[in-house]
Amino acid sequence: MPALITYQTPVLADWVDYNGHLRDAFYLLIFSYATDGFMERIGLASDDRDASGHSLFTLEAHINYLHEVKLGEDVQVRTQILGHDRKRVQLYHSLFRAGSDEVLAASEQMLLHVDLAAGPKSAPFGDQSLEAMRLLVQAQHDQPAPAFVGRVIGLPK
Amino acid sequence: MPALITYQTPVLADWVDYNGHLRDAFYLLIFSYATDGFMERIGLASDDRDASGHSLFTLEAHINYLHEVKLGEDVQVRTQILGHDRKRVQLYHSLFRAGSDEVLAASEQMLLHVDLAAGPKSAPFGDQSLEAMRLLVQAQHDQPAPAFVGRVIGLPK
Repeated sequence: MPALITYQTPVLADWVDYNGHLRDAFYLLIFSYATDGFMERIGLASDDRDASGHSLFTLEAHINYLHEVKLGEDVQVRTQILGHDRKRVQLYHSLFRAGSDEVLAASEQMLLHVDLAAGPKSAPFGDQSLEAMRLLVQAQHDQPAPAFVGRVIGLPK
Repeated sequence: MPALITYQTPVLADWVDYNGHLRDAFYLLIFSYATDGFMERIGLASDDRDASGHSLFTLEAHINYLHEVKLGEDVQVRTQILGHDRKRVQLYHSLFRAGSDEVLAASEQMLLHVDLAAGPKSAPFGDQSLEAMRLLVQAQHDQPAPAFVGRVIGLPK
């Protein structure tokens, strides 16, 4: 199993505007699919075939758009764990063209671990998820430091 | 023409997960359609039938998820202008169930005015857009103060 959490996809026709450019919301959809991949890596349900009974809900997300992306391009998300506590995990997704290291967009996100049967209701991570996250954090040490974190939106002064 | 900028849609089947809940990225898609509506209100192209030659590109967005939304529910976005300078506009979108005042999600966004033919390249707003924004700001005085602005993502201390 590769150390780094990645998700790769071509840019689909449903995701672009009349000019063939990826619409803002679909950058977030690609990051959302990357979160699904992260969930699988820590033993959480991403669809109804999985019986863990737990999931992650997105509480908050920040996204920076750096470059346009066009129909048919192959893009790759690389995902890092910025931190977690008993019930929350803070992720950092970066988008690249496949084979390139130029960042096209970046998103910092806070996600909440929930017990679906109990509400859904927030719940502490299980031991399997905690151990998986510990190993993923160890493995991401060679990744570049996240550049778009802790940002506040505002007009230039 | 109504004073307030609004956009209404049912939650579509393509936008929900296996549980029938709106996926995080599709909240942003609904806000993106609301931005299209804002662009029309200030005289900017939202599709290739419009000949203004200018558009808005999203530079940065922050989104807070407050409540789940389900398949088939009618939702409404209400959009306020937080501010603008010569080339940028800062918008605040709030999502509600149609007929309700309970906020389901909110997004603060920074958008850049661009000349499509020149690059695309950033460009000052035209007089028509500036005047339209002035009138929209006047008309939004009865709206509730935006609650989710200037936020930074972080784990609780």
